[in-house]
Amino acid sequence: MNTLGKNICVTIFGESHGPAIGCTIEGLPAGFKVDQEALSAFLARRAPGHHGLLATQRKEADRPEFLSGLLDGVLTGATVCAIIRNGDQHSKDYGNLKDCPRPGHSDYPASVKFHGCNDIRGGGIFSGRLTAPLCIAGGIVRQILEQEGIVIGAHLLQVGTVKEAPFDPVNVSAATLKGLDEQPFPVLSSASQAAMSQEVEQARMACDSVGGVVEAAVVGMPPGIGDPMFLGLENRLAQALFGIPAVKGVSFGDGFHASARRGSENNDPYTVDEEGRIRTVTNHCGGILGGISTGMPILFQAAFKPTSSIAKPQQSVSLSRREVQELRVVGRHDPCIAIRAVPVVIAAAALALYDALREPRP
Amino acid sequence: MNTLGKNICVTIFGESHGPAIGCTIEGLPAGFKVDQEALSAFLARRAPGHHGLLATQRKEADRPEFLSGLLDGVLTGATVCAIIRNGDQHSKDYGNLKDCPRPGHSDYPASVKFHGCNDIRGGGIFSGRLTAPLCIAGGIVRQILEQEGIVIGAHLLQVGTVKEAPFDPVNVSAATLKGLDEQPFPVLSSASQAAMSQEVEQARMACDSVGGVVEAAVVGMPPGIGDPMFLGLENRLAQALFGIPAVKGVSFGDGFHASARRGSENNDPYTVDEEGRIRTVTNHCGGILGGISTGMPILFQAAFKPTSSIAKPQQSVSLSRREVQELRVVGRHDPCIAIRAVPVVIAAAALALYDALREPRP
Amino acid sequence: MNTLGKNICVTIFGESHGPAIGCTIEGLPAGFKVDQEALSAFLARRAPGHHGLLATQRKEADRPEFLSGLLDGVLTGATVCAIIRNGDQHSKDYGNLKDCPRPGHSDYPASVKFHGCNDIRGGGIFSGRLTAPLCIAGGIVRQILEQEGIVIGAHLLQVGTVKEAPFDPVNVSAATLKGLDEQPFPVLSSASQAAMSQEVEQARMACDSVGGVVEAAVVGMPPGIGDPMFLGLENRLAQALFGIPAVKGVSFGDGFHASARRGSENNDPYTVDEEGRIRTVTNHCGGILGGISTGMPILFQAAFKPTSSIAKPQQSVSLSRREVQELRVVGRHDPCIAIRAVPVVIAAAALALYDALREPRP
Amino acid sequence: MNTLGKNICVTIFGESHGPAIGCTIEGLPAGFKVDQEALSAFLARRAPGHHGLLATQRKEADRPEFLSGLLDGVLTGATVCAIIRNGDQHSKDYGNLKDCPRPGHSDYPASVKFHGCNDIRGGGIFSGRLTAPLCIAGGIVRQILEQEGIVIGAHLLQVGTVKEAPFDPVNVSAATLKGLDEQPFPVLSSASQAAMSQEVEQARMACDSVGGVVEAAVVGMPPGIGDPMFLGLENRLAQALFGIPAVKGVSFGDGFHASARRGSENNDPYTVDEEGRIRTVTNHCGGILGGISTGMPILFQAAFKPTSSIAKPQQSVSLSRREVQELRVVGRHDPCIAIRAVPVVIAAAALALYDALREPRP
Repeated sequence: MNTLGKNICVTIFGESHGPAIGCTIEGLPAGFKVDQEALSAFLARRAPGHHGLLATQRKEADRPEFLSGLLDGVLTGATVCAIIRNGDQHSKDYGNLKDCPRPGHSDYPASVKFHGCNDIRGGGIFSGRLTAPLCIAGGIVRQILEQEGIVIGAHLLQVGTVKEAPFDPVNVSAATLKGLDEQPFPVLSSASQAAMSQEVEQARMACDSVGGVVEAAVVGMPPGIGDPMFLGLENRLAQALFGIPAVKGVSFGDGFHASARRGSENNDPYTVDEEGRIRTVTNHCGGILGGISTGMPILFQAAFKPTSSIAKPQQSVSLSRREVQELRVVGRHDPCIAIRAVPVVIAAAALALYDALREPRP
Repeated sequence: MNTLGKNICVTIFGESHGPAIGCTIEGLPAGFKVDQEALSAFLARRAPGHHGLLATQRKEADRPEFLSGLLDGVLTGATVCAIIRNGDQHSKDYGNLKDCPRPGHSDYPASVKFHGCNDIRGGGIFSGRLTAPLCIAGGIVRQILEQEGIVIGAHLLQVGTVKEAPFDPVNVSAATLKGLDEQPFPVLSSASQAAMSQEVEQARMACDSVGGVVEAAVVGMPPGIGDPMFLGLENRLAQALFGIPAVKGVSFGDGFHASARRGSENNDPYTVDEEGRIRTVTNHCGGILGGISTGMPILFQAAFKPTSSIAKPQQSVSLSRREVQELRVVGRHDPCIAIRAVPVVIAAAALALYDALREPRP
Repeated sequence: MNTLGKNICVTIFGESHGPAIGCTIEGLPAGFKVDQEALSAFLARRAPGHHGLLATQRKEADRPEFLSGLLDGVLTGATVCAIIRNGDQHSKDYGNLKDCPRPGHSDYPASVKFHGCNDIRGGGIFSGRLTAPLCIAGGIVRQILEQEGIVIGAHLLQVGTVKEAPFDPVNVSAATLKGLDEQPFPVLSSASQAAMSQEVEQARMACDSVGGVVEAAVVGMPPGIGDPMFLGLENRLAQALFGIPAVKGVSFGDGFHASARRGSENNDPYTVDEEGRIRTVTNHCGGILGGISTGMPILFQAAFKPTSSIAKPQQSVSLSRREVQELRVVGRHDPCIAIRAVPVVIAAAALALYDALREPRP
Repeated sequence: MNTLGKNICVTIFGESHGPAIGCTIEGLPAGFKVDQEALSAFLARRAPGHHGLLATQRKEADRPEFLSGLLDGVLTGATVCAIIRNGDQHSKDYGNLKDCPRPGHSDYPASVKFHGCNDIRGGGIFSGRLTAPLCIAGGIVRQILEQEGIVIGAHLLQVGTVKEAPFDPVNVSAATLKGLDEQPFPVLSSASQAAMSQEVEQARMACDSVGGVVEAAVVGMPPGIGDPMFLGLENRLAQALFGIPAVKGVSFGDGFHASARRGSENNDPYTVDEEGRIRTVTNHCGGILGGISTGMPILFQAAFKPTSSIAKPQQSVSLSRREVQELRVVGRHDPCIAIRAVPVVIAAAALALYDALREPRP
């Protein structure tokens, strides 16, 4: 099911080359005025054609049409349905994929699952394009969270082999996070941008692609949010983040690095700030203990594999003839999907966190 | 909610020092005969007192009592309830934790969430002890999966700074996976065991703890299992795995390493085996594309932080007096929780995969 | 939440006078060819303007546009989204309802729930118009069920004070049920039609409305379907049926009449038919025991209250001035909503039963 | 699945003659002190042996043991698990039922569903005994509701052919509802008790049983509670009530009687009371419009069929030999299950309403 959440419930629908893509959103607060301009700006960060040659050349406006739940720009409390019509499609590019699955794509397992009936054009439901309605839902919810003082932002922690410094886990500020919104290539230092851009450009020139890691931070999250065991903040965020195509790893705080450490290094000592609030001196745990927010910034990372669609010839098979066959994938593709994925990570996180915040209090 | 799954639905209950812990399991197949001896052996892998000084000295039998759903050892199709009575408790050890939260534990955020009413003794619902009922549910489901030819196994990929080689992602066998069941310290090479044991022992002697990484593999999973976007195999497995206390990262296949690679390196070329089955030459994706199984082995890693409970003195605060205070945690604790977590990872994975397998086919 | 089902999951969206109404449907079988003509005919039974003066004069085509999940008329296995654009609206008719709630409508409780932000035009999300997308989803599922030999039909058991004989609970046939599809006024005897039509016409002439009871039957349901306690067939059907506006009662088999009987009268004796199948001699239980199908016809009744919108002046209040005020409801309304509700009952039942059929077997 | 609710989630487990029955309850408020004495009194209303010859002679204490979620009588916010050990069983009474299903019971459809593996002793999971854990959960929640000023009560509206007057739908008071708690035979007039008791006694003497109707009322429910379409108060209550064995019909307000009326009779005119609150002059709708509470008393009825187990010989079949066979059901059974079902109706309603109350506000 393409559905996320319990208290705010988002269903994503649409196929890349079908009539439209979209989402339904249940559980939004009646009376909230959606800032349509801010929403458009957020969607533009994900949309193709805004990152120069570093991203796919497919150009689409991605302007959502609201079919329900919004009256004069204000949420009515009813289920919201928003759609984006599909326009600029080159469906003929995908003619041979039914028989010759693209390596790294869902083509083969999806054809098994759907008995070959799935719409394979443009990747069908597995297209990165389906993250547009995710960003509509997440973009609205992010606005609601900001009104409650909760700000989410993200940067490219790594592109290919180039890394930059992570967020300051204790002192990362809302201003820093919002500042990243303004950058088409969201990084913390200009040096990173130059080096990462070069990494992407080199891959593109080589008819290839590179992966990347997006790191996100959330400030303003009150302590005590999240539910034990299977509905902790980590479970919820991971379920949402692994819904983004190409994500192969999710970690919180120091994540996999914590496994190499000792408890005395990794435990975050408590302290009391000037206003008498409980804080931790360090924040190795990424603001989450026992699945519940500590009141410190929440930090997590999502690892993106390199874009599967590459111009280089690759080895595939003919499903009908059961023999190996060379495949050349044509079409326009991102050399590094992680760049445009930054707002998608924010959107997914916004939905997961808002769902946790709306959980009835015990 | 301590509930996992949609088609097989597991609810975990109990507090570490309450009368009993247990689980309910809905959706098990009527007529399946549970191998109680195999289940006991599986539970023993998680139970304390089976790993020498490398694990906590708290000794408990962990023998489940089945209250429902099982008649003459055979599943009736009714909701199963199994409980384990809590016995050997030192509740007085935890007297001061209400006011002075342990760093790295859920004590502080849980007290905020539950208004201080939660049972903090032994960590309450956040205790690692709650993984025992998870292992009851997962242990039964693992038996059902094995009857269907699906075998899950796991080893310690890393303990502290010591790593061993990962599973062969293409050729890992059911025999290898089942062989790991026999080892109290499940690793692929005896050299790893020596080095890892030393790492743990050094931490223990230093009144400290170390983290670790558990890698698991699943063989025999048919292709085409898993649902798109938010109910893909990765989402399901991640939601289950982050339910295990101390897990801070989850990755699939090459995980975070894939982010540093190029698409041409990371894509898995297709081939056809002698029996005409579609296979991939490599398996960087860990047997999952688009959230759906490819038919190759499924591979994933769970990063465990070092045990939060350490004997070393630590900095905490008095919640009532709002001032910094030194804390000494007494009690018996695992110097490396990852060791006993190996069967828990298997149990969580069994539940997630079985839930996906029982999803009505499209 | 406007969502129904677990294995097939339907979300209804839209407001009566918003841009569009529609539904998403998850869990439909890939490869099924939707009979669009049959679907249109089914939707026409619910649509206004097909029942002469006995129903509202609002004329709308109710032609669904499929945005996803359907390729060349065949289900792809992806989430289906179908919408109907709203056209012929007289929104000005509803100007004063924000302050002066219509008796019998949701206006007042909805304004409390949604803080007055809900779209009240045409009843908003509470409009009977929202049953059109329910009929799209149910109409498709009904076709799938028929392919599996399961046929659902319904008639008007009662209109106002006029009743006709119920279905033969043991011998009702698929032919009888399908025959009812052809009738704009679905009854078992022509005498009923005359008397019921007169009842409706009299109410309409009096600027008033009447209620009615729809009885439905399902033949071909195999025994053993349905889940105990809260997911029995009765629970599932009731949850779906009470989702239809104006339904105030739901009963199965002999329903409330059974309460006046003795066990020896009400129990259905078992017998064996010529083909060795287990049958019951009578079918007071309506084909359901313990929430599970017996293999006999399933029978149930839905009681509809009289249409709340009537042309007669009524007593209401001014919410702002907190004083009693006379209200005259203008607009075009059905004098007996039960007539057009017949296909809606079938649609709701189809969804509930299909959901039960797709439950993983124990 | 034996699970009810979304915000408060109750799972019922156990088989009539297994080791124990019980429930898990998620979502209860931390810090609430459970009145154990009041809970015992509530459970006693359902327990056998408290209604003289009018109910089964099976005697069981039904004292719940709390395994989790309760510390010193106060809810901790953790999942509650409460069990009742099964004691006084005559399992041999049920030896032949595997082959010869009891008319009116789930024996036959359950054996199909569970491939004959279900525990048929005492009806297994279909036993009325499973309503005891439902009453534990509902009894606790009823206490929480009462603290919020919401009172639920119920009486026997009908036993066999004997009826008494329904609740005053506008003026029914909390005192009236609580007063019914004190009566083993909860009716509004003593004349009813005499006539109804006689009806039951006549049935018992005839080795037979009678049905009945339970009417419940809820006062103090604030307006604006309930969610549209499939999660309205009617849907939620119906889903819970049809979970009670033997319920064959559920209606709200005037229910099926409304179908015979005109809109002008059935619509409830609005008025304003002395304190400026919106009220309705009548309450035909049972306090629910559009699935949402109006602020008036909520009223509903549950129709119980006569107890299926009767001492009279009945016609059944041998499943193995596929031939008709006479069956004599031995054991101790209620001649009128509706009597002991009164607290069960209250419990089910409490859970459904509390779940709606805890829904995040739009």
